[in-house]
Amino acid sequence: MYEGIVQDLIDELGRLPGVGPKGAQRIAFHLLQADPVDVRRLADVLVEVKARVKFCSVCFNVSEADLCRICADPRRDQTVLCVVEEYKDVVAIERTREFRGRYHVLGGAISPIEGIGPEQLHIRELMTRLADSQLTEVILATDPNLEGEATATYLTRMLKPLEIRVTRLASGLPVGGDLEYADEVTLGRAFAGRRSAE
Amino acid sequence: MYEGIVQDLIDELGRLPGVGPKGAQRIAFHLLQADPVDVRRLADVLVEVKARVKFCSVCFNVSEADLCRICADPRRDQTVLCVVEEYKDVVAIERTREFRGRYHVLGGAISPIEGIGPEQLHIRELMTRLADSQLTEVILATDPNLEGEATATYLTRMLKPLEIRVTRLASGLPVGGDLEYADEVTLGRAFAGRRSAE
Repeated sequence: MYEGIVQDLIDELGRLPGVGPKGAQRIAFHLLQADPVDVRRLADVLVEVKARVKFCSVCFNVSEADLCRICADPRRDQTVLCVVEEYKDVVAIERTREFRGRYHVLGGAISPIEGIGPEQLHIRELMTRLADSQLTEVILATDPNLEGEATATYLTRMLKPLEIRVTRLASGLPVGGDLEYADEVTLGRAFAGRRSAE
Repeated sequence: MYEGIVQDLIDELGRLPGVGPKGAQRIAFHLLQADPVDVRRLADVLVEVKARVKFCSVCFNVSEADLCRICADPRRDQTVLCVVEEYKDVVAIERTREFRGRYHVLGGAISPIEGIGPEQLHIRELMTRLADSQLTEVILATDPNLEGEATATYLTRMLKPLEIRVTRLASGLPVGGDLEYADEVTLGRAFAGRRSAE
């Protein structure tokens, strides 16, 4: 075992996703030898990110204010709404510059295995948003995997009575992957070629 | 790009060894959704480790006091000294329970490629330590790779005039690897079978 506090650091680092025990050790030793100023900056940004980052009260995107930058921007098209699973999907889609509407971040996808049902996602808030708005189209941009497809199918059924046009991203996204890993061109084309949801 | 502070966090995490840009993103999103108490604890341990962890003034082992636990322990054999590259090597050797002497941590190995020469390591302090002591044996336990071998060869030459017994760990350690990754049994046997340095 290592000196008390060093072991504490290794334990804390080992809890991070994708960091195994050896990786945690490697990072810890790096930090032991690093400039204290650099380590302090990392510690500060950790505290600050939790203090400052909130979620947009309208779309649940990550935001430092009550309204995120996209919801607060009057130039964004109020008639098209893009429904995504996570904040990182918003960033990926913004990067394509193909979409000028607004977003709704579900906070995940329906996954019976992980015990995530529709009530754990921001679907109720989506329905409220759709009830009184000038929306003419809802784009379901969930991940092209099992959970994403299930979520899109569920939402398609929920949205049917509202008689709004509901579309899905064009196939062209590699199936079985995560939306965020698609390159800009592929994701941009998938946007341009979006189809009506059955 | 992400919201300012989120991008700052991704940038900071991306500087850690073994964490690529995607890994940094993944950790950042995990932290965004994590319990603030957990994130705070990680930040605190980072600050604390830099504040509390120092290096032993005698052997340069990691220590929370001026003298590390091993140097401060009167039960440790004062006649045998084990020279290692890094703190993690001390921990690996302690785990074998084969060695009851004391250590000297060089702080790395000679590596012309990385611009590390003997003067960047704690070799001068080692020579001072050897000058006035009851030492009868110095074990050179550097890593069994190019840099470790070069360092051991250099030290062997330096120690020759002192007429102290200088030994190397037995072969048995996998060549080309890092000492710290050897399992306890292998490392313990390498200790038991140590040979005289040429």
